[in-house]
Amino acid sequence: MTENAQSAPFPPQPTDKADLEEGSVLTPRFDDDGLVTAVVSDADDGTVLMLAHMNSQALSLTISTGIAHYYSRSRKSLWKKGETSGNLQQVVEARVDCDQDAVWLKVRVEGHNASCHTGRKGCFYRRIAIEDGQPHLVIDEDELLFDPDEVYRDVD
Amino acid sequence: MTENAQSAPFPPQPTDKADLEEGSVLTPRFDDDGLVTAVVSDADDGTVLMLAHMNSQALSLTISTGIAHYYSRSRKSLWKKGETSGNLQQVVEARVDCDQDAVWLKVRVEGHNASCHTGRKGCFYRRIAIEDGQPHLVIDEDELLFDPDEVYRDVD
Repeated sequence: MTENAQSAPFPPQPTDKADLEEGSVLTPRFDDDGLVTAVVSDADDGTVLMLAHMNSQALSLTISTGIAHYYSRSRKSLWKKGETSGNLQQVVEARVDCDQDAVWLKVRVEGHNASCHTGRKGCFYRRIAIEDGQPHLVIDEDELLFDPDEVYRDVD
Repeated sequence: MTENAQSAPFPPQPTDKADLEEGSVLTPRFDDDGLVTAVVSDADDGTVLMLAHMNSQALSLTISTGIAHYYSRSRKSLWKKGETSGNLQQVVEARVDCDQDAVWLKVRVEGHNASCHTGRKGCFYRRIAIEDGQPHLVIDEDELLFDPDEVYRDVD
């Protein structure tokens, strides 16, 4: 595997639904912004760590390098997750869904084993609880694995 | 809890980032199409079953009824998952991510215990494998829990 795959275009989606859903050709269905959604889980305990987006380049690099790459919609640029914090995501397994507009990565995280910019292991640290018929949020995973102010201090 | 919650608007997102990320108020960040992304996993074994989208009504109904509701972008309408197939999703736990634009549902599925329209347990039944540096897809979860042609026969 080389990084050449980053520029390799994926084939267009087949017009036949059976080919798309049952076939062996990876033909991602990028949306109007050129993105697919990625769900990322801990390969060891199954915790959903984060959701992110990938353009063609990010998906190609993820596949060819085995390190998760995304596309940052806010920064409008390729995002090698963990490049600043050290929390690189090693891809243990990558899967695609039926219509190929979503990818599921099972990862092991380097560095602090944290995937959320708040310093937590994952982004879903709040549970939706109901009280008197109204939803509210409860933080029930609150261990900070790094100090964001320290780690992101020199980032623009 | 009543279904009245379906029309209850969520409060606007706070301008203060700490309130958004660390607070106890559910203030979903709906995108330009009025949607948040939902990742759905099996509450018992952690399998990621599917990704879907929710508008305000779908999220409210999910919270108030404990049954997963989504918004179908193709049909442009509220989608009570499993209404046709019987595979309703009972929500065991709902979580929200740091910036509140994604929801994670842990569910138990009624009926055939299938969440994919192809008849499979989940939508991510294909693994991305690499051969000679090129990605291809391998179906490695292929048990059909229902016959789509039979279940969806009378659906427009």
